[in-house]
Amino acid sequence: MQSQWFPVPGVRLAAVEAGIKKANRRDLVVLALSEGSRTAGVFTLNRFCAAPVQVAKEHLATRAPRYLLINTGYANAGTGEEGMRRCLATCALLAEQAGCAPEEVLPYSTGVIGELFSLPPFERGLPLALDALDEHGWGRAAEGIMTTDTRPKLTSRRVRLGEHEITVTGMAKGAGMIKPNMATMLGFIATDANIAQPLLERWTRELADRSFNRITIDGDTSTNDACMLIATGQTGPEISDEHDADARMLFQTLEQVFVELAQGIVRDGEGATKFVAVDVAGAVSNEDARIVAETVAHSPLVKTALFASDPNWGRILAAVGRAPIAALDVGQVNIWLDAVQIVANGGVAPDYTEARGAAVMAQADINIRIDLGAGAGTCCVWTCDFSYDYVKINAEYRT
Amino acid sequence: MQSQWFPVPGVRLAAVEAGIKKANRRDLVVLALSEGSRTAGVFTLNRFCAAPVQVAKEHLATRAPRYLLINTGYANAGTGEEGMRRCLATCALLAEQAGCAPEEVLPYSTGVIGELFSLPPFERGLPLALDALDEHGWGRAAEGIMTTDTRPKLTSRRVRLGEHEITVTGMAKGAGMIKPNMATMLGFIATDANIAQPLLERWTRELADRSFNRITIDGDTSTNDACMLIATGQTGPEISDEHDADARMLFQTLEQVFVELAQGIVRDGEGATKFVAVDVAGAVSNEDARIVAETVAHSPLVKTALFASDPNWGRILAAVGRAPIAALDVGQVNIWLDAVQIVANGGVAPDYTEARGAAVMAQADINIRIDLGAGAGTCCVWTCDFSYDYVKINAEYRT
Repeated sequence: MQSQWFPVPGVRLAAVEAGIKKANRRDLVVLALSEGSRTAGVFTLNRFCAAPVQVAKEHLATRAPRYLLINTGYANAGTGEEGMRRCLATCALLAEQAGCAPEEVLPYSTGVIGELFSLPPFERGLPLALDALDEHGWGRAAEGIMTTDTRPKLTSRRVRLGEHEITVTGMAKGAGMIKPNMATMLGFIATDANIAQPLLERWTRELADRSFNRITIDGDTSTNDACMLIATGQTGPEISDEHDADARMLFQTLEQVFVELAQGIVRDGEGATKFVAVDVAGAVSNEDARIVAETVAHSPLVKTALFASDPNWGRILAAVGRAPIAALDVGQVNIWLDAVQIVANGGVAPDYTEARGAAVMAQADINIRIDLGAGAGTCCVWTCDFSYDYVKINAEYRT
Repeated sequence: MQSQWFPVPGVRLAAVEAGIKKANRRDLVVLALSEGSRTAGVFTLNRFCAAPVQVAKEHLATRAPRYLLINTGYANAGTGEEGMRRCLATCALLAEQAGCAPEEVLPYSTGVIGELFSLPPFERGLPLALDALDEHGWGRAAEGIMTTDTRPKLTSRRVRLGEHEITVTGMAKGAGMIKPNMATMLGFIATDANIAQPLLERWTRELADRSFNRITIDGDTSTNDACMLIATGQTGPEISDEHDADARMLFQTLEQVFVELAQGIVRDGEGATKFVAVDVAGAVSNEDARIVAETVAHSPLVKTALFASDPNWGRILAAVGRAPIAALDVGQVNIWLDAVQIVANGGVAPDYTEARGAAVMAQADINIRIDLGAGAGTCCVWTCDFSYDYVKINAEYRT
């Protein structure tokens, strides 16, 4: 993660201690977007999606957003009609104080599922947040959206498009219940580029597919996932043709920020001690490759072996063998740990030794490369190991 | 698990210390079946199925088995042609010493995947085993097939059919890499009843579906799963019509043994401190119910909450919401922990209190009942919690 970040013209942020669940913690974050900003987003496909996810989707379809309101402590999922009512009340509170329409506010919540937050902390915190809005507020905001995260995920890139220097800055949170399906827990990426709304929406889906949709910590898709891309349009001419050279440059820059944030979530995964890329090639389709990669990435036995730095490659093989794809010729399967081939044509590789496997497994970053030898389909998924601390963090989450 | 067990006329067993992987451990088990015995089996659907699974299936299709040969220490999976050659050599060794055809021997292996066992321990151990065969050998055999199991799984039932008393005795092993697909790690159930071969095969599939196919510890389907039902035919007339009253009685008795062994595996799951039934009703189909039940049963967040005795029911709700079924009306979902309703119509139940949820979660046996309110489909899956010890056992498995 880059430690340096740059403000994005047109985006002001604040994070304040509102006492939503615990005292002495910045738990209320507000982003204010300049007039003319465009926003696109992707949201969780979990059917029990949270009230704020439902409201944010509806508001986004109605008006161009001017404010994003994020609380930690409570997810406001599984809270029924009362949860929906309170979510709308927070939007109305902010709208009233900021002088905009409630539909111009997008709400986001993260924390415990099924418990209701109370409104007074919002009543107290929102005026403080509006007072504190600042283009340099990214650092505090990235901390303010954390829950079990051990560190903020915040990164920036700059790219020159013709005579204009464009900034892309993003933050994300998430450390558990991470197996995004269309988006991750929370990701907010902003640029001052002037991106046409249809392109912004297409890019947001495509960028999420190349980043947040490729990570998994525990296979548990959250009820609150949301990933937003904001283009304030403060700098440069409108970009609407994705094939344009400047558009391609900008897309690459955005992709770097999305991927760095997504990988940052895995590196800060609950209890994670290793960062693991599961890279599948030679599948009949990209979808088959994804299924095999996710089966390996979710296997508790593979993940505990990674934690132990144990080259127990039989567990990788067993996970490949149980992946629910239509056909698999095990005699064509080859597997590598980084450059060390462990499986050749479905059996142990002739020159494999335990010492060579153990050397790779001892690394903090490990690449598991699997070739199914059946086609041109590929997919890479990023994950982490499964440690005592994962159990500890999740067993003690609410205490 | 019943502590008392009865021998099965026609089945003799032995377990000896062959030194297959470690010294001073009964690691070689032989079952000898009387002439005229019939055997049926179901095997893993993992594509990387072990050499012994392939050989057992082939031998079973060729001849009526006379011997079952089980080794622990090595799974003999992912071992290629040499693994197959050594598996066949063990069958030939036993056949030569016992005076039968190699095709009358069914081999089973369990242990580390991908490493080859050597043959001398079999050469040393098999004569000892043949010498020790005894109808009262079930206790030692049930211990002999254990790997990370902390206790043997062995149970018996007797049922009177007309003038005959029929015995059903079975043993199973398995504590990790348990998410059977057609069968569990290893299960051997024998009866002296005289069951016609077609009925025996149909019953074996049906009984596995009602027992071993309903359990999951970590979602990792093994390469070596096998579940065998043996009918020695020593007692009573042939049973070939499943609608006959005696046949129904016998089937129920068999089902009790299968279910008790399957649940015994979960109760002895790696690191397990809780036994959990996930009971889904009201699904559009039994298949949908199974998918929802397995999604909840595999969720690391649900399992760690169970370990912590934390009624964090939002995690159950989130798992239901991400289950990959075609449609789900969240407003129709009701969830109970034993008799305590936690979710009513998709939101927290009106009379739910944390204290009532916590009281259930503190129990050693917990029933999670989920009604989707959409149809008549049902499925019950048995699982356990996810503890520090699961990680410890699997991180240190090979050391």
